[in-house]
Amino acid sequence: MNKITRLLDIQHPIIQGGMIWNSGWKLASAVSNNGGLGLLGSGSMYPDVLREHILKCKKATEKPFGVNLPLFYSDIEEHIKIIIEEKIPVVFTSAGSPKTYTSLLQGHGVRVVHVVSSLKFALKSEEAGVDAIVAEGFEAGGHNGIDETTTFCLIPNIKKHISLPVIAAGGIATGEQILAAQILGADGVQIGSRFAATVEASSHENFKQEIIKAKEGDTHLTLKELIPVRLIKNKFYYDVLKAYENNASQEELKQLLGRGRAKKGMFEGNLEEGELEIGQSSALIDSILSVDEVFKQLISEYQKALLFKYSL
Amino acid sequence: MNKITRLLDIQHPIIQGGMIWNSGWKLASAVSNNGGLGLLGSGSMYPDVLREHILKCKKATEKPFGVNLPLFYSDIEEHIKIIIEEKIPVVFTSAGSPKTYTSLLQGHGVRVVHVVSSLKFALKSEEAGVDAIVAEGFEAGGHNGIDETTTFCLIPNIKKHISLPVIAAGGIATGEQILAAQILGADGVQIGSRFAATVEASSHENFKQEIIKAKEGDTHLTLKELIPVRLIKNKFYYDVLKAYENNASQEELKQLLGRGRAKKGMFEGNLEEGELEIGQSSALIDSILSVDEVFKQLISEYQKALLFKYSL
Repeated sequence: MNKITRLLDIQHPIIQGGMIWNSGWKLASAVSNNGGLGLLGSGSMYPDVLREHILKCKKATEKPFGVNLPLFYSDIEEHIKIIIEEKIPVVFTSAGSPKTYTSLLQGHGVRVVHVVSSLKFALKSEEAGVDAIVAEGFEAGGHNGIDETTTFCLIPNIKKHISLPVIAAGGIATGEQILAAQILGADGVQIGSRFAATVEASSHENFKQEIIKAKEGDTHLTLKELIPVRLIKNKFYYDVLKAYENNASQEELKQLLGRGRAKKGMFEGNLEEGELEIGQSSALIDSILSVDEVFKQLISEYQKALLFKYSL
Repeated sequence: MNKITRLLDIQHPIIQGGMIWNSGWKLASAVSNNGGLGLLGSGSMYPDVLREHILKCKKATEKPFGVNLPLFYSDIEEHIKIIIEEKIPVVFTSAGSPKTYTSLLQGHGVRVVHVVSSLKFALKSEEAGVDAIVAEGFEAGGHNGIDETTTFCLIPNIKKHISLPVIAAGGIATGEQILAAQILGADGVQIGSRFAATVEASSHENFKQEIIKAKEGDTHLTLKELIPVRLIKNKFYYDVLKAYENNASQEELKQLLGRGRAKKGMFEGNLEEGELEIGQSSALIDSILSVDEVFKQLISEYQKALLFKYSL
């Protein structure tokens, strides 16, 4: 038991990232059933869809699971109401101020973990009274911070200045990397890409195939003028590059992005026009596995790495 | 003993990066005397200066030391001649094709370690017959690769596909990070920024003070159209940003960069107009130490990290 497993009442300090269009009840319940913490990705769900996934997830597991809550989401108040009504034990909040909803949620017995990409925001989260933080490095898929601090540098720095439990995220897809993250100071890890390439992920099969095909250098952090996002370099990505070459304004970039690109790519499987959000760790992921298999693999890699005799 | 300590005939698998304007004979000999491998940074030395540093370094240590050799350097043939004449046991080559000089150097008994930032170039280096590779992540200071792969993702991927000894670089400034790099698959580490902020580094005191003042987010990878370089965000950096905002051409960026910016910043201590090349790990470096003290600290942090009981 450590700070994170105690806080979240789970067996392994492994949290599955609540990725939009990937993290429905099947994925979250499978992760929780394996002793990790599954998260529903509410950022791509209307309130009634979120409620449905919560109810299905409760049927599929008796273990705790949580909800990822992007704070800029338009239906946020509705989501929070549902989370409280359904007595969800923990939410992972991101993309907004942790000051706004932390006390409200905690007042209803919901633990709050806030996702940050820098020490500055980690300190703000601590001040806002959150229960733990996720520190997410530059290598992570999807939305990302502007400082571009990598997992390898972010975790030790946050650990040095923060006493809250720290969950490392960004680039973690193997058991060796989990151990390395712990050595850098993490109490737990949040894993996204590896769980996106599972049978249980709700994303489109085309997208899963793209993840396992992706090699080093096939993702890039772009659209930094809007919100930085790490994507696979597909046609849409190169369209954005072309817009940059033509000195597109922020407004023109917004129009090019439009609405529904993430759904189109990850959920509908349109590999050319969609936004395919995935992390650098996709280069380390070669097969679509079941969540059971992922856990077996992570644990076996971790144990092996732990047994090796290191010396300086 | 491991692959790297055997190959380089050193006690600890710790290599000091051969950073231009920082890595003269004082730094290199102090690192070698501590059981690591010191490297002279020949990229900022005329041939006669390199010879002088080699001779002084030989007087200051009986242990092996090496030379870092940027392959695009104009005096490269002269440098290679000197290295062979002075029987330098190992060179670290970078910024060019490992095919060009590897056999020549090896034919004269010089071991060749090539610096890469991607798996693609690691495979090319293996093909070229180098003795080991340095795999340098996005968080590293100075010149960097275009794929932006971080240490956390680069090392496991290279280890998976390459059988040569691998030295991890980029972001490493603490003993915990050395252990983490080993767990990710590294046989040794190359450390830059931490050694730049030592008494023995030949860089200007002003620059050393900037390193220890730098916080997370204070460096950025820029000038990607020329050669990507990670710098402290000083006046020169913001001048580059302004040029981007005005849609500067590659030629205009080249003119803005001009010649001698790195010398001006790191060697002459002009913190406004100079190029201040340093890694993200500068956020973890709070004091200028002697090389002896750095080694003591790295070893003690490493041993402590090794004793901790990790579990999943």
